[in-house]
Amino acid sequence: MLERRLDELYQIGAEPGGGAYRPLYGTAWAKAGELVERWMKSVGLETRWDPVGNLWGRLEGRDKANVIVTGSHIDTVRHGGRLDGALGIVAGLTAIEALMKARGKPKRPLEVVAICEEEGSRFATNFWGSRAIVGSVGRDEPDRITDPAGVTIAQAMRERDLDPARIATAARDDLDTFLELHIEQGAVLESARQQLAVVSAIVGTAHLAVTVGGRADHAGTTPMAFRRDALAGAAAMIQAVESIARSLGSPAVATVGKLRAEPDQINVVPGRVVFTIDLRHSDLGARRALEERIRSLCRTIASERGLELDIRVLQERPPVRMDPELRALLARAAKDAGVTAVELVSGAGHDAQILAARCKVGMLFVPSVGGRSHCPEEHTDPGHLELGARVLVRALELLAY
Amino acid sequence: MLERRLDELYQIGAEPGGGAYRPLYGTAWAKAGELVERWMKSVGLETRWDPVGNLWGRLEGRDKANVIVTGSHIDTVRHGGRLDGALGIVAGLTAIEALMKARGKPKRPLEVVAICEEEGSRFATNFWGSRAIVGSVGRDEPDRITDPAGVTIAQAMRERDLDPARIATAARDDLDTFLELHIEQGAVLESARQQLAVVSAIVGTAHLAVTVGGRADHAGTTPMAFRRDALAGAAAMIQAVESIARSLGSPAVATVGKLRAEPDQINVVPGRVVFTIDLRHSDLGARRALEERIRSLCRTIASERGLELDIRVLQERPPVRMDPELRALLARAAKDAGVTAVELVSGAGHDAQILAARCKVGMLFVPSVGGRSHCPEEHTDPGHLELGARVLVRALELLAY
Repeated sequence: MLERRLDELYQIGAEPGGGAYRPLYGTAWAKAGELVERWMKSVGLETRWDPVGNLWGRLEGRDKANVIVTGSHIDTVRHGGRLDGALGIVAGLTAIEALMKARGKPKRPLEVVAICEEEGSRFATNFWGSRAIVGSVGRDEPDRITDPAGVTIAQAMRERDLDPARIATAARDDLDTFLELHIEQGAVLESARQQLAVVSAIVGTAHLAVTVGGRADHAGTTPMAFRRDALAGAAAMIQAVESIARSLGSPAVATVGKLRAEPDQINVVPGRVVFTIDLRHSDLGARRALEERIRSLCRTIASERGLELDIRVLQERPPVRMDPELRALLARAAKDAGVTAVELVSGAGHDAQILAARCKVGMLFVPSVGGRSHCPEEHTDPGHLELGARVLVRALELLAY
Repeated sequence: MLERRLDELYQIGAEPGGGAYRPLYGTAWAKAGELVERWMKSVGLETRWDPVGNLWGRLEGRDKANVIVTGSHIDTVRHGGRLDGALGIVAGLTAIEALMKARGKPKRPLEVVAICEEEGSRFATNFWGSRAIVGSVGRDEPDRITDPAGVTIAQAMRERDLDPARIATAARDDLDTFLELHIEQGAVLESARQQLAVVSAIVGTAHLAVTVGGRADHAGTTPMAFRRDALAGAAAMIQAVESIARSLGSPAVATVGKLRAEPDQINVVPGRVVFTIDLRHSDLGARRALEERIRSLCRTIASERGLELDIRVLQERPPVRMDPELRALLARAAKDAGVTAVELVSGAGHDAQILAARCKVGMLFVPSVGGRSHCPEEHTDPGHLELGARVLVRALELLAY
């Protein structure tokens, strides 16, 4: 049933170049939501679209409060794979279905959620659905934030009969726990020949933009000693970024992903380079220390070479620890399912890091073959999917019954 | 007179953003040629446009052959300066004018040439005028080579009443010597507080395109040790290019001017990088050794990092030595003018390197303030311009009388 539902969902938004694309509030997005709603209803859940477009399916409990929620996001990146987001929704739904059959009405309410957006693949924002759930969407965001075609979020919501003025009412204060099954999207589990991980923390991220200013000179008439080559300086900084992250060791990572040299001519010494740094660590102090070491070495390189340097923070998100009791419960659920789960830091961001502001959060990772994700090759061994789903069922049982 | 003529020529093709632009066969180019032709006629030279659009002004000698030629190119880069090319034409014309007055008819014919094109700033080729003089323009070039608007050289020539079928007849076999006064376009003379240089050689150049292949991975979920980061590898190679050129010392130069990273996203480890290397040296063996050391170190870096590497030669031009007797004559002319000339390798290309196939070639450099060229700030101290012109007069006198 799990695999069949994943297949069916993956058909929606299928792209000519492979993979699926279901951007927030688009046609494929709406169609996928309708399919999930039909599934929810067919297994006997009470469904509800909240004002921002998150879809909830509820199995009532003997208590009304302290809701246990599982699920994930329904949107995808361009040429997205079959599992990112979809797995958490389908496995959550299937788990609640199994628990209803086996155990009947739970003590606490059980809900599965299809969060409307997490990827940031249409509008210039992300965590849109989970931010609405914790009440942290800014009042000006719907009219301010646009997609590449210039459509505002407010306009796109109205096309789906959603009222942007009501977003604040999507906030919930009755949640006890959010639990998500997701693919690792990296190759750590596969390399370590592990089947399952309990996430210990989601890394904090900083995005920096580094501008290196030198002097554009003729590549033939300017001796090496006379140059202020912005790209040679940037290359030394890129080397430093990599060395520092390597020397700190896992889970520190640092990536220079974008770079632009000016004037970008074969026979001109580059006069200006702008590049980005993506820095991550699960410990805020360590993340900041990583950033400070990189800034300091960049300053030294710039000063040695007579270059100007400007480092600007584009974005900063703190690391989020998963709830310790929930981690222990997940480890026990794994053991009950006959597997030893390892602990892993998530290098990618997830809705859980946002929802942590309002409830206890926990995550389970299953291995990604070759670490591939955000592409049509995204794949997890069916046995691992089944195992992850089984541990999710057991964890929800421990939480809600 | 020299400064006044330079000012007048600089008005032609003046651009709103500063500087002048006189692309081959354009309106400003034609207007500049007409002005120079009026000057030639006014000082008593016999003028002639050859089939490719080079403009010649001749002072007949008692002999008819073994022509002594001076001059430079009349085209400019975009936002070009007042002196690049223009100086050689104006100083050549002014020098012949002075010699006519002072010494009358020379033994050997003296010609000043305004070469139609050297910069490659309109069509996807360069040295168009000097290549026609030595008979090395390919038969298919006029119809094959276009400007960014898709106009072929042949079309542009016909608009100026020039017949592309007759280009081969522009070739000359009666030249003895070509002598050019030019600005240095670098800051070596200025830094060494020198007023004049005799060029010893024009560097050989190789342009390489380096493609580094790694694997695009998620910047958060991929530990440093798992990466095959094409940009980190390219950065190590860029560092190596610079170190090797520095360690070889002048006149070796190596420049990475263009770079493109893919997919160029802030949160993705770059999977592919393409960058260019511009390599120059006045000695062919040394230029090749420089290239071989760079190739070898790039291979080592790629292999250490598990990256793919492809290095392709985009263009290669051998170095050209200036004629030794002519160099000695120029040094003597400088001494007669009361200045000691240093010897200098030209890091930039010049028509002389093409004309060397058919005659003895020599060049004089005057200092460029701040090394600036190919921009409106291009400037040389008036005293240095006057000195260069004076040495040119004396050298032409020694050669032709």
